[in-house]
Amino acid sequence: MHEQRLSILKNKMKDADGFLMTNSMNIGYFTGFFPGFPSLLFVPKDGEAVLFVSRADAASAEEKCRFRVEVVGKESYVEKLRELLRPGFRKIGVEESLEAGFFSRLKKEFPEVSFDFFNDPWVIRSIKSAEEIKVIQKAIEIAEAGLKAAVEAVGVGVRECDVAAEAEYEMRRLGAESFPFDTIVASGSRGASPHAICGNRKIKRGDAVVIDLGARYRHYCSDITRTVIVGGNEKMEKALSLVISAQEVALSMIKPEVACSELDLSARRILENEGYDKYFLHSLGHGIGLDVHEPPSISSTSNELLRERMVFTVEPGVYLHGLGGVRVEDVVLVEKKKGRVLTKLPKDLFI
Amino acid sequence: MHEQRLSILKNKMKDADGFLMTNSMNIGYFTGFFPGFPSLLFVPKDGEAVLFVSRADAASAEEKCRFRVEVVGKESYVEKLRELLRPGFRKIGVEESLEAGFFSRLKKEFPEVSFDFFNDPWVIRSIKSAEEIKVIQKAIEIAEAGLKAAVEAVGVGVRECDVAAEAEYEMRRLGAESFPFDTIVASGSRGASPHAICGNRKIKRGDAVVIDLGARYRHYCSDITRTVIVGGNEKMEKALSLVISAQEVALSMIKPEVACSELDLSARRILENEGYDKYFLHSLGHGIGLDVHEPPSISSTSNELLRERMVFTVEPGVYLHGLGGVRVEDVVLVEKKKGRVLTKLPKDLFI
Repeated sequence: MHEQRLSILKNKMKDADGFLMTNSMNIGYFTGFFPGFPSLLFVPKDGEAVLFVSRADAASAEEKCRFRVEVVGKESYVEKLRELLRPGFRKIGVEESLEAGFFSRLKKEFPEVSFDFFNDPWVIRSIKSAEEIKVIQKAIEIAEAGLKAAVEAVGVGVRECDVAAEAEYEMRRLGAESFPFDTIVASGSRGASPHAICGNRKIKRGDAVVIDLGARYRHYCSDITRTVIVGGNEKMEKALSLVISAQEVALSMIKPEVACSELDLSARRILENEGYDKYFLHSLGHGIGLDVHEPPSISSTSNELLRERMVFTVEPGVYLHGLGGVRVEDVVLVEKKKGRVLTKLPKDLFI
Repeated sequence: MHEQRLSILKNKMKDADGFLMTNSMNIGYFTGFFPGFPSLLFVPKDGEAVLFVSRADAASAEEKCRFRVEVVGKESYVEKLRELLRPGFRKIGVEESLEAGFFSRLKKEFPEVSFDFFNDPWVIRSIKSAEEIKVIQKAIEIAEAGLKAAVEAVGVGVRECDVAAEAEYEMRRLGAESFPFDTIVASGSRGASPHAICGNRKIKRGDAVVIDLGARYRHYCSDITRTVIVGGNEKMEKALSLVISAQEVALSMIKPEVACSELDLSARRILENEGYDKYFLHSLGHGIGLDVHEPPSISSTSNELLRERMVFTVEPGVYLHGLGGVRVEDVVLVEKKKGRVLTKLPKDLFI
């Protein structure tokens, strides 16, 4: 499988002589070994890939990766690359997320080589295999059980961190390897910040409580959001049903070849009808897989098209400063003719 | 407080005309606002700092940051910087951790400016205030309670993720905002990988179980490791007591002006006496604060000196491929004449 993935990458290289990767999820995807310490994978267009790992990763890397593994500290990368970058090499692909410090050093040490940014690893990763989809579904099941436990824990006087405690406990019991991002339980006015994490605030009657969480299972992530309204709150209930309608419209449009920007705009238009589009402060969604945020970007400025077997989130939200926020988020798979929502949890979780 | 921090940074700039930051912890440290979305802080040597934030962060940024805040999407950074980088500007400091894609764009768009790497934000952050030390101590207390809960949960037949569940539950109940890194519960042969996270493996009699966890409290991190040996295992018990001795030697050497490399080597020499230094696969420790890994680096290749009010971990380990691993990790504060260990949990947690 990894040989096949590497050969797809090599085919995408066109006129480049090789690709240099340091992103640990990219390395894991192409080698089967997910490094715990700084690592570097060099993939020449012709010839064998070489993985540099730290001493601490050596034994596991040799066990899991079928390619050549060398124990090389970060401080010796340049020296080792000097052996690998053959005199004819003129163009090497690198990740945009590379650290500027290392990028700058590469350019200085190899002035004859042009280091160009290629997003191919992420483009390749954005199309999921049947096996990957199965693992993501399992990660989603775990997160849904966590969210259910969170909703049951919500109540007047309960602290946000207590709600997170119940959710995470449930996810661990179901085998979550880790949590791919900080669990969000944002109640009342705190919910007006889309990325507020957890605090010690006690939930009050009338609060909208945004719960956004995920689990990692066999390296793959899930990400799901539900909003619970405690007691009555007309304003937040209205915002929530608007957001649910906006999501439904976007979900109904999903199929291959649709522009990601069009999806985002379709949800925004529904909110616009009620003058709420100005409170939708982030993009509609993001691809999900080994990273919780990966291509495609479902935003109004995205120039990507949906393709079959992409998996991404659809998560409109409305944030009213001083009052609170509402958001719903589901994970969708692009099938031949439509989107299939992989999350099953109901959205009307009012208390 | 933030004005003072910024003025320390300005004093360190020397001949640079300004500093450009994108690291969210650096931005939080210097402005008081910890962004949830991509942000950029520009600090001119003379004049007012400006913080660019995304729409989603605008309201909280304006609430928490006393400097000028502008809502600027990532795609418009260059355009906005054009207004700020005055014609006389020749040298601007940037972080080494900056994304190469953005770094490269900066160089192209502002060819007359030299963008140089400065580590000053991290150097400044490495010396903690009394208030920061108090918060770190609270983060440590939470993690210690979590570790105690984990140790109580360890038993034959219990899965690693069940142990993590109990630890994290306890930390959340004590007010942990989040977990700064994936909790490690690595039992038996899995413990031989220093960064193995959690799996579904059931703990067996004779296993060494490495438990490494931390909590975040008011943005600051803790990080602590203990190893539990289930039933008897002479080999692992010997390794554990060696590691504890190595740690004691290193701890006893801590005071201002001592070389970080010397600390690392002192621990390594204790293991060497028994031929175990070759199984100590990582560096001795790392600074801790807003990031769980930050300067100083306590490694054999570090060229840093300890300074008063630095806070860092001391965590020797021994990893025997196929058998398992042992590690102990404490957090230390450098005082005027010695190190003060901030973690209190006993190290002899054999079952």
